[in-house]
Amino acid sequence: MIIIGEKINGSIPSVAKAIAEKNGEWIKDLAKKQTEAGATYIDVCASVEVGEVETLHWLIDLVQEVTDLPIAIDSPSPDAIIAAMPFVNKPGLINSVSGEGDKIAKIFPVIADTEWECVALCCDDTGIPKTPEDRLRVFAHIMEEANKYGIDPSRLHIDPLVEMLCTTDDAMANLGVVMSSIKEQYPTIHVTGAVSNISFNLPYRKIVNLCFMVLAMNAGLDSAIFDPTNRDLMGAVFATEALLGMDDFCMEYITAYREGLFGPIK
Amino acid sequence: MIIIGEKINGSIPSVAKAIAEKNGEWIKDLAKKQTEAGATYIDVCASVEVGEVETLHWLIDLVQEVTDLPIAIDSPSPDAIIAAMPFVNKPGLINSVSGEGDKIAKIFPVIADTEWECVALCCDDTGIPKTPEDRLRVFAHIMEEANKYGIDPSRLHIDPLVEMLCTTDDAMANLGVVMSSIKEQYPTIHVTGAVSNISFNLPYRKIVNLCFMVLAMNAGLDSAIFDPTNRDLMGAVFATEALLGMDDFCMEYITAYREGLFGPIK
Repeated sequence: MIIIGEKINGSIPSVAKAIAEKNGEWIKDLAKKQTEAGATYIDVCASVEVGEVETLHWLIDLVQEVTDLPIAIDSPSPDAIIAAMPFVNKPGLINSVSGEGDKIAKIFPVIADTEWECVALCCDDTGIPKTPEDRLRVFAHIMEEANKYGIDPSRLHIDPLVEMLCTTDDAMANLGVVMSSIKEQYPTIHVTGAVSNISFNLPYRKIVNLCFMVLAMNAGLDSAIFDPTNRDLMGAVFATEALLGMDDFCMEYITAYREGLFGPIK
Repeated sequence: MIIIGEKINGSIPSVAKAIAEKNGEWIKDLAKKQTEAGATYIDVCASVEVGEVETLHWLIDLVQEVTDLPIAIDSPSPDAIIAAMPFVNKPGLINSVSGEGDKIAKIFPVIADTEWECVALCCDDTGIPKTPEDRLRVFAHIMEEANKYGIDPSRLHIDPLVEMLCTTDDAMANLGVVMSSIKEQYPTIHVTGAVSNISFNLPYRKIVNLCFMVLAMNAGLDSAIFDPTNRDLMGAVFATEALLGMDDFCMEYITAYREGLFGPIK
């Protein structure tokens, strides 16, 4: 499971405050904690009104001071992402492109002959498609463009877009259809998602997020953006991999437990 | 979801002690707590070396003092079960028959023209079949016998037998095959299981049990024996029902939360 640690995001009030106050120690601590918790990438999102590229630079430098993990550069602006790419020590993850506007046209040529990986959302200028068929149509377009630039499917993390369950009873069913189809068409591709979207407006969100993670992994999710310091969710990831037959004799589950990635804090 | 509350079982040391000391208040408290927690049946298993029927009588009387829930009479002995049936105020659940010995031959005629429901395990005199095909063969035999006695599939809870994951990497995959096939053949039948079997010999069993429950429900499990006072597991049941599209606008999830069946204790 590829875990994109979501905690360094300026849309989170405590992070916004740390950015405003230039509290580098706070940011470094978030990077360290997510690294220790088992993250694969450290997502970095500035979410500031002015000076996005400078803020990304500051954040990336801080993260790289304390961890060797690759960075996921997270911005709605392809220009900001491209401007921030030279700040990292090694290729990471672009978060994200989609069928919207000129995102693909700007990003794909830049990452074409690199080792960068890229999250691609299944939405376009018409918004988030309602039906699985329409999301798969956006997906087909993304793959056409990826093919044009020689970007191997294994470098893509397709996000079929997780909707809130409380207003969309078939959110999980639709997602399952999209995920299975994506994996069937391109077995080496990654399917990703923002886990906590599913539980918006529901009480006790953490159990909904956890059960969603299990069902989504069963449907093909092998990459996800969430808080890796959420020990229950980490335990669920390892337990589900074992249950899905991806962990011989539960050795990875047992090792992760011994390393303290989940379970009671020792 | 049909929840068979497992806590009144003489194989649990604290319950064995209560039985030995004739501590009726302890038993009543277990019945009350499971009722409040949302159980559908209260399972009653004596697990004593002598006087099983008398012990079942004593236990059943105590349970019926404090709850109107139907009782699951739990014994490896069909004779003990049949002897205990007159002690209950209303038809409940037989736990259990299987393809072993004369269990079916003794129990099915007794429940034929009643409203009793019955758990049936997919094992026989050869033990627990290794392959899904062999379990389905035992299942087919059970259904032949049920048909002979006019027992509607909707009164049966088929237990495909949950094995421990640590030695059986394909435990979940095999179970999924058996469960899906059972539900496909008889859409109104119940599929049940002893949830905690999956996690024997693993650390932090509760997360394995929980993830197993989610995957098993996805494969067709709609009945299960577990501890309903396990609030995380109860939350997972309601969240998974919502995720699987069985709960319009998450109303049952929200109601269960408001009633305090899961989440922080208020």
